[in-house]
Order: sequence, then structure tokens, then C-alpha cells
Amino acid sequence: MPESTALEQYLTDHRQQFEDDLCELLRIPSVSADRNYAGDIRRAADWVAARLRRLGLATQVVETGGHPLVYAESPPVPGAPTVLVYGHYDVQPADPLDQWTSPPFEPTVRDGNLYARGATDDKGQLLTHINSAQAWIETAGRLPLQLKFLIEGEEEVGSESLNKFLEQAADQLACDVVVVSDTAQFAPGQPAITYGLRGIAYFELRLTGPQHDLHSGTFGGGVTNPANALARMLAALVDDDGRVQVPGFYDDVVPLTDRERAQFAALAFDERAFLQRIGADAATGEAGYTTLERRWARPTCDVNGIWGGYQGQGGKTVLPSTAGAKFSFRLVPRQDPRRVAAGLRELFTRICPPGIRMELIEMHGAPGALVSLDSPYMQAAARAIERGFEQKPVFIREGGSIPIVTAFYERLGADTLLLGWGLDDDNAHGPNEKFSLTDFHRGIRASTYLWQELVGRGV
Amino acid sequence: MPESTALEQYLTDHRQQFEDDLCELLRIPSVSADRNYAGDIRRAADWVAARLRRLGLATQVVETGGHPLVYAESPPVPGAPTVLVYGHYDVQPADPLDQWTSPPFEPTVRDGNLYARGATDDKGQLLTHINSAQAWIETAGRLPLQLKFLIEGEEEVGSESLNKFLEQAADQLACDVVVVSDTAQFAPGQPAITYGLRGIAYFELRLTGPQHDLHSGTFGGGVTNPANALARMLAALVDDDGRVQVPGFYDDVVPLTDRERAQFAALAFDERAFLQRIGADAATGEAGYTTLERRWARPTCDVNGIWGGYQGQGGKTVLPSTAGAKFSFRLVPRQDPRRVAAGLRELFTRICPPGIRMELIEMHGAPGALVSLDSPYMQAAARAIERGFEQKPVFIREGGSIPIVTAFYERLGADTLLLGWGLDDDNAHGPNEKFSLTDFHRGIRASTYLWQELVGRGV
Repeated sequence: MPESTALEQYLTDHRQQFEDDLCELLRIPSVSADRNYAGDIRRAADWVAARLRRLGLATQVVETGGHPLVYAESPPVPGAPTVLVYGHYDVQPADPLDQWTSPPFEPTVRDGNLYARGATDDKGQLLTHINSAQAWIETAGRLPLQLKFLIEGEEEVGSESLNKFLEQAADQLACDVVVVSDTAQFAPGQPAITYGLRGIAYFELRLTGPQHDLHSGTFGGGVTNPANALARMLAALVDDDGRVQVPGFYDDVVPLTDRERAQFAALAFDERAFLQRIGADAATGEAGYTTLERRWARPTCDVNGIWGGYQGQGGKTVLPSTAGAKFSFRLVPRQDPRRVAAGLRELFTRICPPGIRMELIEMHGAPGALVSLDSPYMQAAARAIERGFEQKPVFIREGGSIPIVTAFYERLGADTLLLGWGLDDDNAHGPNEKFSLTDFHRGIRASTYLWQELVGRGV
Repeated sequence: MPESTALEQYLTDHRQQFEDDLCELLRIPSVSADRNYAGDIRRAADWVAARLRRLGLATQVVETGGHPLVYAESPPVPGAPTVLVYGHYDVQPADPLDQWTSPPFEPTVRDGNLYARGATDDKGQLLTHINSAQAWIETAGRLPLQLKFLIEGEEEVGSESLNKFLEQAADQLACDVVVVSDTAQFAPGQPAITYGLRGIAYFELRLTGPQHDLHSGTFGGGVTNPANALARMLAALVDDDGRVQVPGFYDDVVPLTDRERAQFAALAFDERAFLQRIGADAATGEAGYTTLERRWARPTCDVNGIWGGYQGQGGKTVLPSTAGAKFSFRLVPRQDPRRVAAGLRELFTRICPPGIRMELIEMHGAPGALVSLDSPYMQAAARAIERGFEQKPVFIREGGSIPIVTAFYERLGADTLLLGWGLDDDNAHGPNEKFSLTDFHRGIRASTYLWQELVGRGV
């Protein structure tokens, strides 16, 4: 084992290299949802593979039916655990482009933050673990445990190829625990370990009325308008108390425990500051729950996109032929996305008005996840974070979904440590995504200690 | 008064001249929407003016800020009414050009129809009234009543200049009734008088929730999603029975009379063929009304456009910052668009959920129009049409709005007789626009008798 001081010195000496590397990767617009970026997806995969090969790891770019995976591993270390580090090199689409202060694929530093699409989600966070591996290898000559890196390019579009690979390569990927940094701290300077995630069930609804657009004067009132029908069907999903109306939706929900509710209530959550930050007038949602409970541990229904008819300037008196929406439910542990899909289809089949042909597309689904607070891996991670951030982490849940966490549990039998270095206001999926450079370096430091803690203290 | 036989003989003898004249006017591509045709617009105005001058009418080309108006009048006839004939010499753009069988500005006869842009809308229909005036003047030496012709060149682009002229020249345009032939028969060989039009109140609703797009996982459930709110607010506009829920919406609605309902029910309306033509599965709408009643004489609410969030390929887990819609109410006579706007604002202010800032924009409004079936002008027109077409007309209404009809009522205090010689499948705004030559000559004949009926039988 090297002295901590040698590792610390290495990290200090390589700050600039780490930042330059990250900017290089951020300049590649690896948008997985849009076929036009297929070449950039490939470039990003190759970049990550080259970066891992440079550390001497056995590295391969795994071809799939979709975007390539990157896999790399260091040699096994007898008596030490094997850790699978997961991340993703793909990013969300950057639109609306006109709301970005600096271009999304030209990384720019302002006030200590690095602005770029993918800065926090997940290129910046992913690189913390590659950089910490580099620090060990270049300081001590080797890692204190076996690391397996699994970096995918379809996280933002459902991880289909990764899921297939997990089925095929479960032996190759065998590990004791999985580490993922793709979440957020609780607050600036207050690191957190996320022990629960929400699942998701994402749908697209397409409605067709008349075969072509009609004049709303000559025909209005006599045929069903698909845009009106769409509004009615979406409105029927949630009642006035914020309760989802899909049949059976709450049947399998694991309720929050008193201990959890007490822990959440003890967190220094400033609701007013929260609202100010996102520029919202009021905290709203399901009746009977606090804002943190609603965001972390209660299921939801959100319309993610809606369209139909004339969207240009002025008025056009059109009765549109089609209208559609994308919408998704966030699920809590034990809710089954397939059951939600079945209930939704039942509801929509019942309420879809006459004169409308309905197409309901199940885009993707994943159940939620929950890790025991008492696991020794969880405790080791807490110690590493305390050393890296000089602050004890709090234990929180997260409203977002990382479906792959469920897959790791199901395919590899391994729990996942969600160690988030980001912040809530990083705008992960919106314009002006950012990542704090201070947290980038703290994350590298915490990761560096994590490999030690997972070996050194009885894990 | 000349013998009917003399007028009939004149019309028979001049069939070819009338057709040649029409073809001459149709060869002028007077497209009002496209500045490249400004010279042709001028040529068409001059052509119409020359045609009216040839009849000995006092004619002027009225210069405007836009395209010129043509105005002509015959001398007043004591004891006889004054009739204002309105029409337009401008036409819709001809594209898509490749879908025309013969070129749009080379009039071509096929199967008894004259194909050209403007054939039915409105050059062919307009000329029926100029030709009937010619028949009277050349047979009897004068018209039996005073005619005022008002022919504009901006009908297809909003009639801005005409509306200004109506304000300035109300005295000059004073009349007892207005005649417009710019609509359709009910069916081939079944002429119709359109005695009612719907009005309109058109709005745009813009909702803003959080100041920027948020991740729907991290934030979903804790703040109001403007796309969800939009669906709820739009859905609240109409109940399950198709009744508009704006407060006071039905207070001023003139209900259909039993006589009107009986007349509509007696029409040979083939609902199955109608649905097939527009490619809709079912006729739907306000409970308790037939399809024709719903389209012609009941108020509606149609979403004309809706937008918000992610509309691209694949799924994006965004909680959008904004969402919006354009929507409009078709109004029936006595409904006041301003009262509808006030009721709508009251409703939306009440139901707009917390956490949402609402902007409701009143785009434009116009009341509907209704001419009494018992008006002597209406009865005279019915008799004239029966003589011209050898078929009693039916009395119908139209779901669309013809704003100029409202303007004539408001500025001149005159009702409008909508005497349509066209057919529903004339492709007025599409490729292969046509006008039946049989209906052209029937229209001239009906118009010839109209001047007589408006004088001779107690009007």
C-alpha cells in the first residue's frame, strides 16, 4: 500500500491533466437518442477504451446491436474483493440549444463549474474512477483490488445492449459489489450515499382522428379532435390529490418507514431555497407527503413531451389529424413496470374516446432499488467519502432511475453503491449542464480511498 | 319588365361569351398571397373594372394600402331595393403544381367542368352576377333595382383593405341586402342557401412551471409539471357530453328551432360517406345533436395546436419548464367572443394549479351570423334559385366563419344572402380546382331572376 501522501501528491500534480481529459471527452457529442450522432457515439467509446488501455488494463470495445460497450479489467487480487465500476459515455440531447449560455459541446469554465452536456451526467463522474485507478497504478504499481470497468453508450435510451451483455457475460462480470457515480450530493459540501432509487415506466401515446388535418370551422364539433382527446386522457392519469389513477398502481408500493421519514425530516433541506433555485412558485404534489418524500420515495406521473396541430406564429384554424405525448411514471421499490403498463393500457382502452385510434408504445421500464444501510460495503464507502470530502455522508434516496442497478442485482447478485459527486442543480438533462471542478477532484480523492477502504477494513 | 323568354333567350345566346370571358379572367394568375403576382393582381382588378364599365356602370378602381378594390354601381331605382354584390378576384396559390392535371392558369374543360385556379373560388361565381346584370341591361335597357358591386383582391389573405374601406365608405355602400356567391350547393343539383355561420374566439395559453427544464426523476412529484397542468386545464374545457364548461358559455346561444332541426334532418346527408371522405372512424360530439347540427349550429371547443417538452425521437426524461396550446371556440349567433374570453379567464384563473404561471392571449374573435328564414330577401332568393336551378334550394348553415359577413352586418346593417353555386368537391384551395359549367349557367340564370324576385314580389 502506498502512503496516502504519495496518492495525495499524485492527485494534486495531475489536476490539470484530469480536467483536460474530461474536456476532450465532453467535446464529443455522444447523443444516444439521435441516429445522427452515431459517429460521435463511436468516437466516445473509442476514447474511453483508449483511456483505459493507457492504464494497462485489458480493454475491449464490445460490439452490440446498438451502441458499443467498453469493458476493461485489472488483474484479480487474492483476498481482496472485485469491484465493478459502471458508467456511461452517452449523453442526453442538448436541445433547447438557444437556452445554453455556452455551446453544449464546447466545455467552458465559469465560477469553478465546468459547463457542457455530459459534464455531470455521466462523463465527469465516470472519469473520477478511471483517474483514481490511474493514481494507484502510477503510484503503487497496481490496484489494491480487482476493478472491472463497464461503460455503456445507451444509458439515456434504455441500456438495451448492456442488459443483453449482462445476460451473456455474467461470469466475466462477476463481482462483490458495484460502484456507480451518476447521482448527486445532498447539498454542496454535504456528500451522500444514495440507498434507494425510483424505477420508471416510460410511454408514448399517439392518437389519430381524421385521416388528414381538417378545417376546424367546417368540421369542428362533428368529429373527435385528437388533441382534445389527448388532453383528456393525460388529465385522467392523476387526480386532484396527485394520486395516479392507473388501476392497481399503488398495490405493490413499499411504504416509507418511520425511521426513513425521520431521517429525511432531519436533513437540512431548505424548501424555499429549493424552489428559488428551480424558479418554481410552490412545492406541490401528492397530498400527505413532504417534498423530499414526494421526490425520492413516492411514485409519480409526468408528461415529458406533448405535441399536435399548429405550433407556429399566429392562429391556424386546424382540427389536427394526430396528436401525441411522451410521459413516464416514476416507480418505487416493488412496483413492476409491466404491471403498470398493463393497468395503463386497461385505463386508456376504457377512456379513449370514439373516433380515435390509439397507439400506446411501451418505451422502457425498470423497477426501483433499495440497498441495506447496514451493508459493510456501504460502511466502507461512507469512510472513503468522509476522507475524500472531509465530511461524513448522509444517506438519501433519489427520485431518478438507474435501471441498471436493478439489473446488476438480478444478473450478478451484487448490490450497487451509488456515490454521487454531482449536485441537484447541475441541470443534468436541461440546458447549461455543469459539474463543479472542486467536486470532480473530491470525487477522484474519495474514489482513490474507496479502493483502500474496501480492502483494508474488514470488507 | 322584359318577358322571361327574352332574358332566357339572351342567356342561351351568350353562353359562349360568358365562358370565354371567364376563361380570360382565369388566365390571370391573381395570387394575393405572393408578392411576385402583384402585376397580375392589378391586371385582374383592371379586367373586372373594364367588364363592369362595359355595362355602363359607374366604376372605379379603389387604391388601398394593399391590393386594389373594384367598385361599380348602377343608378338607384325608386321603390326598389339596393343590393350590394360582393366577390373577390384574388385566388389561392396554385401549389402543389405537380398535382394539377392541366396547368392552373390554363382553363381546361373536362367532363363538363372547367378546371383552373379560381374557377369556383371566386371568379366563376362572381361573374354569374356580372353576367346577369348584362342580360338585364342589354335586354331591358336597365336593371330593375340598384346594384353595387364590391370586388376585392385580398379575400385569401384577410381582407384588411376591404375592412378599412367599409369603415370609410359606409354611406357609399349603403344597401338593403348583400349577395355573396362564394360557398357551395348542398350536393350536385341540390342548391342551398346558407343562412347561418359560426363565429370564433381563438386563444393561446402559455404555462410556465419551473424556470428551466428539470430532470423528471430527480424533481418529478415535487413541482407542478406545466404539460400535466396544460392537459388538465384543456380537459376541463369540455365535459363527457361534449358540453363546453366555460361559465356562461351557453347563456346567449340561440337554440336550434324545431323547424331548423326538421329541415336539417330532411337533408340527404350520408354520414357514412362523410366519415369515409375525412377518414374518421365515428361521428362524435355534443350529446343530443346530429352531425350536421354539431357542425353547423352548435358551439365547440377545438385544440388547434399543443406543444411542450421533448418531441424528438426516443424518450427524454424531462419535466418541461413550459407548455402551451392554441385553441378556439366556434360560436353560434348571439354568443359574444368577449364574454367567452371573460368566462374562460375566470375558469382558468380558478383551475390553474399552484406552481404554474399562466398567460392567456386573446388572438381574435368574431360573432356568428344568422339570417331569418322568414326574411323577404331570403324568400326572394329561394324563388330565384328554384327558377334558375329548377330545384328548390335547401336552407343550410356553415360551421366556418366568413368574417366579411359579420362586417357587412356591423358596418352596413345589412344581412347577407350566401348563394353558393359551387360544390364541396371543387377543391377550392387544392390542386385541380374546378367549377361545373352547368352550375355556372344555372347560377347566371338564378342571379338574373334574383334581381326580378327582389323587386317584383313585395320585397
